[in-house]
Amino acid sequence: TINADRLLHRIEELGSIGRDAQGRLVRVAASDMDKLGRDRFVGWLEQGGLEVAIDRIGNIFGIWRDDANAGQAPVMLGSHIDTVIDAGIYDGCYGVLAGLEAIESLKEAGFALARPIVVAAFTNEEGVRFSPDMMGSLVFAGGRNLGEALASIGTDGTVLGKELERIGYAGRHEPGFFKPHAYVELHVEQGPVLEREGIAVGAVENLQGISWQRITIDGEANHAGTTPMSMRRDAGVAAARVIGFLADQASASSTRTVATVGTIAFEPNAINVIPSRATFTIDLRDPNETHLRKMEAALAAFLEKLAASAGVTIHAESLARFEPVTFDAGIVSLIEDGARAAGLSCRRMTSGAGHDAQMIARIAPSAMIFVPSRGGISHNPAEFTAPDELVAGANILLGVAARLAAD
Amino acid sequence: TINADRLLHRIEELGSIGRDAQGRLVRVAASDMDKLGRDRFVGWLEQGGLEVAIDRIGNIFGIWRDDANAGQAPVMLGSHIDTVIDAGIYDGCYGVLAGLEAIESLKEAGFALARPIVVAAFTNEEGVRFSPDMMGSLVFAGGRNLGEALASIGTDGTVLGKELERIGYAGRHEPGFFKPHAYVELHVEQGPVLEREGIAVGAVENLQGISWQRITIDGEANHAGTTPMSMRRDAGVAAARVIGFLADQASASSTRTVATVGTIAFEPNAINVIPSRATFTIDLRDPNETHLRKMEAALAAFLEKLAASAGVTIHAESLARFEPVTFDAGIVSLIEDGARAAGLSCRRMTSGAGHDAQMIARIAPSAMIFVPSRGGISHNPAEFTAPDELVAGANILLGVAARLAAD
Ligand SMILES: NC(=O)NCCC(=O)O
Ligand SMILES: NC(=O)NCCC(=O)O
Repeated sequence: TINADRLLHRIEELGSIGRDAQGRLVRVAASDMDKLGRDRFVGWLEQGGLEVAIDRIGNIFGIWRDDANAGQAPVMLGSHIDTVIDAGIYDGCYGVLAGLEAIESLKEAGFALARPIVVAAFTNEEGVRFSPDMMGSLVFAGGRNLGEALASIGTDGTVLGKELERIGYAGRHEPGFFKPHAYVELHVEQGPVLEREGIAVGAVENLQGISWQRITIDGEANHAGTTPMSMRRDAGVAAARVIGFLADQASASSTRTVATVGTIAFEPNAINVIPSRATFTIDLRDPNETHLRKMEAALAAFLEKLAASAGVTIHAESLARFEPVTFDAGIVSLIEDGARAAGLSCRRMTSGAGHDAQMIARIAPSAMIFVPSRGGISHNPAEFTAPDELVAGANILLGVAARLAAD
Repeated sequence: TINADRLLHRIEELGSIGRDAQGRLVRVAASDMDKLGRDRFVGWLEQGGLEVAIDRIGNIFGIWRDDANAGQAPVMLGSHIDTVIDAGIYDGCYGVLAGLEAIESLKEAGFALARPIVVAAFTNEEGVRFSPDMMGSLVFAGGRNLGEALASIGTDGTVLGKELERIGYAGRHEPGFFKPHAYVELHVEQGPVLEREGIAVGAVENLQGISWQRITIDGEANHAGTTPMSMRRDAGVAAARVIGFLADQASASSTRTVATVGTIAFEPNAINVIPSRATFTIDLRDPNETHLRKMEAALAAFLEKLAASAGVTIHAESLARFEPVTFDAGIVSLIEDGARAAGLSCRRMTSGAGHDAQMIARIAPSAMIFVPSRGGISHNPAEFTAPDELVAGANILLGVAARLAAD
């Protein structure tokens, strides 16, 4: 079993790194704050006697191998340590630190396994600063060209490749420089299911599809006092119609589609000027690809009608599009076995969030373990999972990793 | 009559000052760009042999007086030279430069009038950077405490008083240091009426009431992928409902109410995070105070219902509230007489925009002259009034000013 104290202390410590002036946790990808978190993580890898490797997209790997197993495809554990703006301390970090903890505990206990075990921290999983999300694992899995990914422009106008160089994490390894035997990602659920049902462990068997778009609406700036309502081409009102449509559509829907508009900007953004331009993002998700396509089509039809009726032009750009993923049945069973052996309640479930496992599933058998999130809250400083739940999940991870690396 | 070339050249020249990197005209109040415009205007005042006086709220006055009339209350002409973001070149500047032009032409022609004539450029008429709009004229008219006005916080976090000091326009005169005999403001209509009806001159007899509010909606940040639609407290969706409500209400209205949401921001403003906070401004106007109050009440009722149904809290703060104003009937008649004498078509009308005349009307008989705006467009670089229309308006102003200063 793992060293519970060490794991819990590291989660707290990493969560204290990258606080802004208001005390908010903001370790968005490849930022100065992210560098601080990365440096701490690499310090722990070195302290644990692991080999550290960094690839060109900035993914960090801590490798535990010996002369006997060095030629075998490794079992990979991991997640990410970048965060959203004003984040909680568990999302991503828990899976990375538990992966490291599993390796250290096995190593300290003198295990000699048939395969190396690697813990990975993938770059820009959150997708807050650079699109798409899960970028490091996507590039590692060959799903996106490295050059294109490095050229990504951040919300602050920065270039990912330049930012990685600046913070010292533009590594020398080619992404995909090894092919994992299997990948297991432990994560907080970020949703309400486990807590509501009083279940300790989720064996995640699939993950919903994600469609991210950026919408730009162009109308005409004019004077707020002198322009009759009937003569306006108000980009802001048109944007509000889209937000209302999405909320209505997803709420009324008999499917499980969720729709979110998380960012918005008006131009010129002045109190007495009708907005000439509104820019906003849309996040659509559904576990069923057919339903996701239906929602995308309904949105496209709405935008077309709206453009005509509101006298505006509307441009939709895809920022990310991932189909739903089904995880490896064998690993899902191993997770269930592990929970049963530990006397923990367990259920199969779907992930609502995107995860690096979704990308790594393209190149290796993969699955995920979830532990409960209090109130289903995440991407919020109130994110919380109890210490005993964190420890229980990490022990399941250790067991599954040991089984996968045993032959 | 005025020197048409001089007036038209000055309008062009002032319009070329304060362009940003993208070529946009952005001379928002008390900015570096505003300073450049002010410096040019003061240069012209000095060149015209006028006495220059600046008051503590940064209003600039060019005074033409002689030993004989120095004791009399002056006739004041003027408007403002601050602009919105990405502005046209006529709004405000036209009235200021035409006022100066009227004085210079009368002076050069050797007129000796019974009263001084003053041209004024009032601070922060647009209200884009600091609220409320018409601030300089409001303070001059005693409608707002000087200290409070100087303490106004700009949209960029700056303090108006500090900004005025920084750009060298925190003058030494107390606002209201003279009481005008009358005030006449020439302005582009900024609306579609004169052009549509083919009329050269508007004699503005009243001005609609203005209600500005800032709305803050607080919900709860959560994960865009894992949070079911039914469990969300989405501040962004609530904001969209308000914007839709206002547009529907004002469009359907049998009154002349106009409603605009010109600015908006979400927090944390991330693509995959449900907005915890939405902040936006509302601009409501109506020429009839009863109708304006009705709209304010309908909005307040809607916000209350929305807060309950969407599980959010909503805070509304008034940024500016001005009742409709009726101008001086005598000056309106003088404007009509002037148009008739010049053989120009003229109609009485209501101003949709707020103007400094609205504030000065509190302390002196006031009225306004409008000339046509092509397409009714303003607060937009496409703002345009033809040179002959500009010259015609300035000549009416000169005539009215001479009449008012004659005794
Ligand atoms: N797990 C997680 O929050 N991933 C970020 C990508 C997303 O699902 O929006
Ligand atoms: N004339 C003008 O555009 N004034 C600005 C104040 C307003 O009406 O919004």
